[in-house]
Amino acid sequence: MKISCLQENLSKGLQAVSRLVSTRGTLEILSHILLSTEKGRLKLSATNLEIGINYKIGGKIETEGSITVPARLFSELITQLPEGKLNIETEDNTVFIKSGDYKSHIKGLSADEFPLIPKIKEGKSFSIDANILKEAVNSVSFASAIDETRPVLSGIYLKLNKNKLTLAATDSYRLAEKVVNVKGGDKKIEVIVPTRSMTELTRIIGDDENNINVYLNANQIMFETDNFEFTSRLVEGKFPDYKQIIPVIFETKAVLGANDFVKIIKVAALFSGESVGSVNLEVESKGKVSATSSSSQFGDSQAACEAVVEGKDAEIVFNSRYILDVLASISSGKISFEVNGKLNPGVIRKEGDKSYVYVIMPLRA
Amino acid sequence: MKISCLQENLSKGLQAVSRLVSTRGTLEILSHILLSTEKGRLKLSATNLEIGINYKIGGKIETEGSITVPARLFSELITQLPEGKLNIETEDNTVFIKSGDYKSHIKGLSADEFPLIPKIKEGKSFSIDANILKEAVNSVSFASAIDETRPVLSGIYLKLNKNKLTLAATDSYRLAEKVVNVKGGDKKIEVIVPTRSMTELTRIIGDDENNINVYLNANQIMFETDNFEFTSRLVEGKFPDYKQIIPVIFETKAVLGANDFVKIIKVAALFSGESVGSVNLEVESKGKVSATSSSSQFGDSQAACEAVVEGKDAEIVFNSRYILDVLASISSGKISFEVNGKLNPGVIRKEGDKSYVYVIMPLRA
Repeated sequence: MKISCLQENLSKGLQAVSRLVSTRGTLEILSHILLSTEKGRLKLSATNLEIGINYKIGGKIETEGSITVPARLFSELITQLPEGKLNIETEDNTVFIKSGDYKSHIKGLSADEFPLIPKIKEGKSFSIDANILKEAVNSVSFASAIDETRPVLSGIYLKLNKNKLTLAATDSYRLAEKVVNVKGGDKKIEVIVPTRSMTELTRIIGDDENNINVYLNANQIMFETDNFEFTSRLVEGKFPDYKQIIPVIFETKAVLGANDFVKIIKVAALFSGESVGSVNLEVESKGKVSATSSSSQFGDSQAACEAVVEGKDAEIVFNSRYILDVLASISSGKISFEVNGKLNPGVIRKEGDKSYVYVIMPLRA
Repeated sequence: MKISCLQENLSKGLQAVSRLVSTRGTLEILSHILLSTEKGRLKLSATNLEIGINYKIGGKIETEGSITVPARLFSELITQLPEGKLNIETEDNTVFIKSGDYKSHIKGLSADEFPLIPKIKEGKSFSIDANILKEAVNSVSFASAIDETRPVLSGIYLKLNKNKLTLAATDSYRLAEKVVNVKGGDKKIEVIVPTRSMTELTRIIGDDENNINVYLNANQIMFETDNFEFTSRLVEGKFPDYKQIIPVIFETKAVLGANDFVKIIKVAALFSGESVGSVNLEVESKGKVSATSSSSQFGDSQAACEAVVEGKDAEIVFNSRYILDVLASISSGKISFEVNGKLNPGVIRKEGDKSYVYVIMPLRA
C-alpha cells in the first residue's frame, strides 16, 4: 500500500474509529486499526466484536493494499504531526509514515488477522436525517438500564411503522419515548439495539453528515453515510409493552422554565443525603413549583420557581437524578410537568412537542 | 451572625478556600469552613493543618459572629444559587441561607472547634508583585520531587538577598531556578516552602491581586494581599548546594522554537516504550535539532526541526518528560538548548532571559 492524505482528515477518521478499540483485551488484533484502500479512498476499520465501523477518508492511492496498526500509537502519532499532506507506505508488516521532517516506522499485523466487519447490503430499511437521529437517540438513551441483568432494558427499542420511527428506552423506573419521521420506511420493523451502540453512533455522526441509510438483517443493524458504515449486533428478546404506563390524562399540570426546574431540583438534591437523591415536589395552583428536602445530618432546603399551573395542587416525591437526566437533554425553553396524585407516574415533556414523552415512577414519601 | 453579601463574591471566595478542605479526614472539623465577621467583611477560613487560608469578601454585617459549615455542601449550595444578594443568619449551630425563593438550613459546628490559623504580623520580610510571584512559582515547581523521601526536595527553596528573590526546585534529576525582583527585601532569608503550598498559593492569586506582602517566622511563612492571608509551614533542612551543577559554558548551543521542540520530542517519546520516555537528541551545526527513538515492540521515529546552532555537533539522551515539563512552562517563543557532551547536564533557557535556568541530567544511551 502506498498512499497520501491530509493529516487533518486522517486525524478526524481516527478519532471516529478509535473509541471502539479495546486497550486491554485478550486479543491483540482488537487493539489494532485496519488500514485498507477502497474505491480510491483510505478505509479505517475498528471493531470490538459488538460494534464494527468502517470510516473512509479521501486521499491519493498509488498502490492498493491493507495492513493493521496499533490504534493508540498510530492515533497519537498522527495527532502530533503537522497539518497538511502525509505519506503512508507499507513494507511487509511495517508502516512508514512521513510528513516533512517527521519519519516513523510502526510495526503492524497482517490484515488477514483482522475480524471481518459484516456489511448488510440487501434490504435497505429506511433513511433518516443524521441530526434528527442523533437528537432522538440523545433524548432517550439515558433512560436505559446501565447493568445488563435484563438485556432488553440495556437497549433502545426501535419500531418502524408507516414512515414513523419510534425510539424508546426504560430501566423500569423511568421511560423515554421519541417519534421521528423517516424516509422509505414502508416496512414494519421492531428491534432492540444496544444503547452503547447507539450512543457511539451519535458520537461518530459529524456536522457534515446529512443522510443515514439503515439496513437490517436478523442479527444486525447497519447505519451508512457517505463517510462510514457502522454495524452493531441486535439485542434478542421482547421489549416491555410500555404504552400502557404512559398516562393519557393529568390531574395537575405545570409549565415552567427547564433551567428554573434544574436549579430548584439541584439545590434540593444537595440535602437529600441519606435517601438517594429523593426530592419532594409541590405544585401549587397559585402558580408555583417548589422542591424541598431535608436530612437529619445536613439540614434542609426549600427552593421555588414560578409556573403556569392547571388543575389541583399536588405533592409527589421523585428521584432527583431521573428529573435532572431529562432536563439535561431538553436543556432550555419551557417544559410541562404532569402529575396524577402522589402514587402514579409523572410526565415531563418539552412544552408543545408531542413527539416526546418522559415518564417517571414516584418514590414513596 | 447576620450578614448579606453577593453570591458571586461568596462563590469566588469559596472556590479559593475549599481546595484546602479535606473530604475524607479523621477530624470532622477539617472538612468545614469557618465563617466569621472581621472589620466589616465576611471571612472564610480553611486549613489542612499544613496550609491555612483566610479569605475576606465584602458584605453588609448586621450582627457580628462566627460558625463553621461543611465545606462541600455549603460551596455546592452557594454555586447553585442565583447571582445577586443573599442573606446569611446563624441560630445556635445552624446557618440559614436565603436568596429570593431559595431557603436552606445547614447544620454547622461551633467556631470554637476550628483550629487557629496563625497570623504572622511581626517582621514583614518583603513585598512582591502577585503575577511575578505566580509566574516564578509555576516556572520552577514542576522540578520538585513528588515523593517526600527527602523532604527538602519536595519544597521550593526561597533565598532573598538585596531585593532579589531566588526560587529553586530540584528532584536531583533536573533543577529549575528563577530570580525575580522584590521590594523592601533588605534582610537575608533562606527557607524551603512545601511545593504543594506554593502551587496552592498560585491558584488562589486572582487577576485582581496586585501586591503580596510576605512575612516569616521560624516555622511559618505568610503571604498577604488585600483579599487573603495564606500561611504555610516551612520544610526543615538544608537545600542542596546546587549552584555548582549549573554549567557556565557550553560546547553546543541551539536556539529553536519552543513549540517545534515540543512537537519533535512528543513524536519521538511515543516510540520510547520500554525505556521510560528516553529520547535521543542530535544537534547538527548545519542548523537542525532532531529527536529519535526506537522500540523493538513498536517501531522507530525520527523528527527534526530547524535551529540556529553554535559550536560543534552533539548527541545526548534525555528523559522526554523532563524536557516537556519545562517547555510547558515556557510555552511559546524561542528557547536555547545548551549541551556539553553526552555525559554532562544540558541547559534549557528562555532565549534572552537570564533570570531563568533549567538543568537536566542526561541518561546513558
